[in-house]
Amino acid sequence: MLDSVASLGALFSPRAIAVVGASSNARKIGGIPVDYLQRFGYGGDLYPVNPTTDEVQGLQAFPSLAEIGRPVDLAILSLPAPQVPQALTDAAEAGVKAAVMFSSGFAETGEQGAAAQARVAAQAREAGIRLIGPNCLGVMNLHENVYATFSPAPGVGRAQAGRIGLVSQSGAFGAYAYSMARERRVGLSIWATTGNEADVQVADCLQWLAQDPGTDVIMAYMEGCRDGERLRQALATAQQAGKPVVMVKVGTTALGAQAAASHTAAIAGDDRVYDALFRQYGVMRARNLTEFFDLAYVASVAGRPQGQSIGLFTVSGGVGALMADEAAQQGLTVPELSPAAQQTIREWVPFAAPRNPVDITGQVTNDPSLIERAAHRMLADQPLACWMGFFAAAGASDGFWPVLKSLVVSLRAAYPETVLAISTLLSDDKREELAQLNCLSFDDPCEGIRALAALMHAGASKEPGVPQPARVGRAVALPAGPVAEPEALAVLRQAGVPVVDAVVVRSAAEATNAVRALAEQGQDAVLKVVSADLPHKSDVGGVVLRVTPDRAEQAYRQVMAAVQQAAPQARCDGVLVAPCVTGGVECIAGVHRDPVFGPVLMVGMGGVHVETLQDVALRLLPTTRAEVHAMVRELKGWPILAGARGRPPVDDDGLVDALLALADLALAAGDRLSAVEVNPLIARPRAAGGCVAVDALLTLT
Amino acid sequence: MLDSVASLGALFSPRAIAVVGASSNARKIGGIPVDYLQRFGYGGDLYPVNPTTDEVQGLQAFPSLAEIGRPVDLAILSLPAPQVPQALTDAAEAGVKAAVMFSSGFAETGEQGAAAQARVAAQAREAGIRLIGPNCLGVMNLHENVYATFSPAPGVGRAQAGRIGLVSQSGAFGAYAYSMARERRVGLSIWATTGNEADVQVADCLQWLAQDPGTDVIMAYMEGCRDGERLRQALATAQQAGKPVVMVKVGTTALGAQAAASHTAAIAGDDRVYDALFRQYGVMRARNLTEFFDLAYVASVAGRPQGQSIGLFTVSGGVGALMADEAAQQGLTVPELSPAAQQTIREWVPFAAPRNPVDITGQVTNDPSLIERAAHRMLADQPLACWMGFFAAAGASDGFWPVLKSLVVSLRAAYPETVLAISTLLSDDKREELAQLNCLSFDDPCEGIRALAALMHAGASKEPGVPQPARVGRAVALPAGPVAEPEALAVLRQAGVPVVDAVVVRSAAEATNAVRALAEQGQDAVLKVVSADLPHKSDVGGVVLRVTPDRAEQAYRQVMAAVQQAAPQARCDGVLVAPCVTGGVECIAGVHRDPVFGPVLMVGMGGVHVETLQDVALRLLPTTRAEVHAMVRELKGWPILAGARGRPPVDDDGLVDALLALADLALAAGDRLSAVEVNPLIARPRAAGGCVAVDALLTLT
Repeated sequence: MLDSVASLGALFSPRAIAVVGASSNARKIGGIPVDYLQRFGYGGDLYPVNPTTDEVQGLQAFPSLAEIGRPVDLAILSLPAPQVPQALTDAAEAGVKAAVMFSSGFAETGEQGAAAQARVAAQAREAGIRLIGPNCLGVMNLHENVYATFSPAPGVGRAQAGRIGLVSQSGAFGAYAYSMARERRVGLSIWATTGNEADVQVADCLQWLAQDPGTDVIMAYMEGCRDGERLRQALATAQQAGKPVVMVKVGTTALGAQAAASHTAAIAGDDRVYDALFRQYGVMRARNLTEFFDLAYVASVAGRPQGQSIGLFTVSGGVGALMADEAAQQGLTVPELSPAAQQTIREWVPFAAPRNPVDITGQVTNDPSLIERAAHRMLADQPLACWMGFFAAAGASDGFWPVLKSLVVSLRAAYPETVLAISTLLSDDKREELAQLNCLSFDDPCEGIRALAALMHAGASKEPGVPQPARVGRAVALPAGPVAEPEALAVLRQAGVPVVDAVVVRSAAEATNAVRALAEQGQDAVLKVVSADLPHKSDVGGVVLRVTPDRAEQAYRQVMAAVQQAAPQARCDGVLVAPCVTGGVECIAGVHRDPVFGPVLMVGMGGVHVETLQDVALRLLPTTRAEVHAMVRELKGWPILAGARGRPPVDDDGLVDALLALADLALAAGDRLSAVEVNPLIARPRAAGGCVAVDALLTLT
Repeated sequence: MLDSVASLGALFSPRAIAVVGASSNARKIGGIPVDYLQRFGYGGDLYPVNPTTDEVQGLQAFPSLAEIGRPVDLAILSLPAPQVPQALTDAAEAGVKAAVMFSSGFAETGEQGAAAQARVAAQAREAGIRLIGPNCLGVMNLHENVYATFSPAPGVGRAQAGRIGLVSQSGAFGAYAYSMARERRVGLSIWATTGNEADVQVADCLQWLAQDPGTDVIMAYMEGCRDGERLRQALATAQQAGKPVVMVKVGTTALGAQAAASHTAAIAGDDRVYDALFRQYGVMRARNLTEFFDLAYVASVAGRPQGQSIGLFTVSGGVGALMADEAAQQGLTVPELSPAAQQTIREWVPFAAPRNPVDITGQVTNDPSLIERAAHRMLADQPLACWMGFFAAAGASDGFWPVLKSLVVSLRAAYPETVLAISTLLSDDKREELAQLNCLSFDDPCEGIRALAALMHAGASKEPGVPQPARVGRAVALPAGPVAEPEALAVLRQAGVPVVDAVVVRSAAEATNAVRALAEQGQDAVLKVVSADLPHKSDVGGVVLRVTPDRAEQAYRQVMAAVQQAAPQARCDGVLVAPCVTGGVECIAGVHRDPVFGPVLMVGMGGVHVETLQDVALRLLPTTRAEVHAMVRELKGWPILAGARGRPPVDDDGLVDALLALADLALAAGDRLSAVEVNPLIARPRAAGGCVAVDALLTLT
């Protein structure tokens, strides 16, 4: 892996570049990179390759890669698809280490193209050449003036060099984001588009950027991922390096996923699994371009806030209320000032609101010194992860600028750990001056709070890289072939998941005995047909609830008759008699195997009503106990589990234990287990018996 | 009401203005309006009033209003609070019709200030003077250059005159919004801040703007409302006039409401009721300043889209997928193109995605004419409310501008009903040129779709002004004093709400008989204590479920014993025996009386689990049958009612009937009824008995 990353050096930081298919016309695809590289001051060697001319844009041209006769790190292949294989052969002979392939006509065109792409990928792999593309817009290194791209965007105007790396699977998205970076004065380190990803994937670029000393923050755009493990490793590396990752991933809706699928050959995968992945690795997911840049801006200027608390300072009570609404909606803590601090502020301005938000009122017009005094009093009162001040339209007046700058300088010096943000109308230059002081600024205080909150929530994820399993899973013997419920429950019990005590009966008399035994313990029974052929027992009348001894025989016959009538071909291995579990909160839990990311743990609220709301949380496995605790708390129904409306809280630790046991089962079982689902998993208070699996479905391959 | 609105003409369109407390210093509060009015070319008469000087900023000064001797429409009172009463006396004598009161020191300072404010308000009312303020930043009329404000914002730079009216309760918010309007080149008609609202409220300004021929779109900021009926009337007028209203209302969270309350004397009221009001009148609620301006921009350039469908056009598949995600998340319809249209597009560009989003691919670089052809083919295929095209970074290149402009001109001509939007990077000038063609433009296509969706959803509300009650409520006899459950159920039945058949028993023997009667109909019983003193019967053990005849005596004694033990003082009027309603979906319904807006109808999903999720919908009364249907569909749990997971749908019409009956009951009962709550209201399929109220609580005053 590390070697594989190191080999990208030739792509992102090449000492010599050849442009194969170089054109004398600086507006043609083969001419644009030659133009950019010369015009924008690339410092390495540059060799146009074109067999029909001696000179390209003032440079000596070579008839082939072989005839350059000097080392070439990177070859830009600006060629029609059919000429690519020969060019790769030449590149291998010339010792080229990496290639950018602009060429379209590969996997994006259908099966034939995909086959051609596979051949090209194999050829490059054998030759030890790293390949980015085909069907991509190439790469740029803004510090080294590497412009291995034919995007017109840098031609319109260059983005400034900086410390944000940007990688996009889509060329058009990448070019648009580049242009927005230019307009917003966002400084970029590396820009890369991966196109069809015959070799280099978004994940590889992420891995590079995570290790690149010139990059602090990573912006990425993805449509789909072929190699879940590679992506997970890359995000883990970024997290360990403390580099925030902002991600746009399309396909949050069925329509979007369909649109993405019609556009790219990538496996879209289940978007909710991506969401879980991003959550586990503290990736900030941006819904759109505005958020993409807002989050990157906040991350690059502010770093990671230490906690979730925010101090809100305002000269307008109304906007203060608006800021408070946003902070509360974003789940931030807005701690009230101590009585002493409130009193001090009230002494300075009798009609101030001193709690937090602190509304120092329009009184600052008469006495601007109030701002600095009150802000310091706020921050001296208690540590705050963030502090945001709203100064109305005053920022637009030159007279206010010295007040504002002095405020920021003094707060920065006194509270270096606190993220500072200002909201007022400022010119771009003043905005940049504040950024130099590590102070954010926003026209709209609420948008600022929203971006800060995303950063704070992402920072709350503490998963230290790719975790080891929380425990070593018990060795579990999996049955062969289809699995009926009693076997599934037995597997779960063996794995350490609490399950109901159930017996299988094969006659009405046995059923009556079993039901009577439960009745003696004060429990009604449930009777369920046992059949590996009938995963949906209720649908065929194969389940009878609340059976008392006097009704046991009838219930047994009812189950058998219903099954006989509805599914005469189904194999029937008797009837399961289990206690009717009453009370508790119905949950669902399970593990399924995602085609891209492997086993994924799921927990959700159960019951037909709540299931309709699809209140589930996911985690990629392996994961940690802390993450499993977090996923339970992520459920919208968590207040129900925690004991809403005066009910006793369920056994949270027991629920987490059961989930971890399911996770371990899946990890121990490996590929043979394609899914395990417990529905319902009843969560009860510890005193009422804790968690118990009532029904289970095991799907083996 | 109309007279009251007409009287605001003196405020918003005065022919002569006096500035009382006028200062020679153009930077002082009393000097700023004189400066602005002169400098910015106010066309009416302007009279500085200042007893200590003959001349103010080059104008003749008058010692008092009386000595002006010519008609004055508007007096700007730039005076300390104690001098205001005398100034109003003078104003009355001078025949002044309206006054702007900058002065602070009134209701915002506490009880004494509130009393002073009430006296000033009464004085003005008696004199027939309309009053805006106190504690406000005044008003502007940008077409007539009326600058009755001391806000520094116009001094920094003036916003352009246009057709958007802006009213803000908060002066600082208003000034900031004015400045943002200037920076964003948003044209304003009227700008008004209402401050403490001694007389003129935000609602009055809305009413004025709704009738103002110079205003097409209304932006408003509110903290709270004193007169719900006035606000409702104003929003109805705007809706009838077809003028979109964009509203920022603070206090969506408890923290925000608290911050707002500490800032203003306004009654905050229940924010969810405001939400219902806004929904009923098609008001677009903006969460923050960015949305505030985005929505106003969309509304002013695009008018109202006709429907909820959108065509998405892109040159980048990735961004197309992102747009599709946003459209789907916003609940818009993205209709697939007909096979014929898809085929045509595929013939032009074999690798295009032709469904919708239509991804015409980077092929447009080679043949820009594809854009216009494909866009027309899309719109010719079927009518679309909106069409949005994403053109990547191309918009920034001058070469593309003629292509884009020709596209917009030809689409505008061919499809005048379709709202057009372009997403690419454009200069402000080009953006304005598109706006002149009634075409929207956005850097971020997703933010654009979001704003368009808000407009489309707001347009979907068709409530025609303040509605009459759907039906005349039956006359209902309300009991005197506290109401126990049997009486409450009887009132509901009389009002036309289906309720369970229940009897009251007073002995174990009677209970057994009643339970046996139910058993003969195949129903278990529920026993509940009857006591007007015990609204929460379950909490004291006063309810026993699933009672069969053999357990009836025991259940009766259990209820009586539990109540005797838990609440020995409670009056007990027997035990209610009702059938145990099984199956169906538990809902809650009711009407409560909001202190600002009067009776509010509520429906929500019931059951302890779902109630925790607070899934409720509200409507102000009176409302229409169509709105009640809409509110049921607004519930997140609507899919459950509609028959999720293969269950039969509940009797939707019956549910709406029950809600309308509750609404009529509340309207007929008037102020005596402070709340009626049905919990649970069981919604079942029509064949299973439809809707039925199982328990009810009636709170009378």
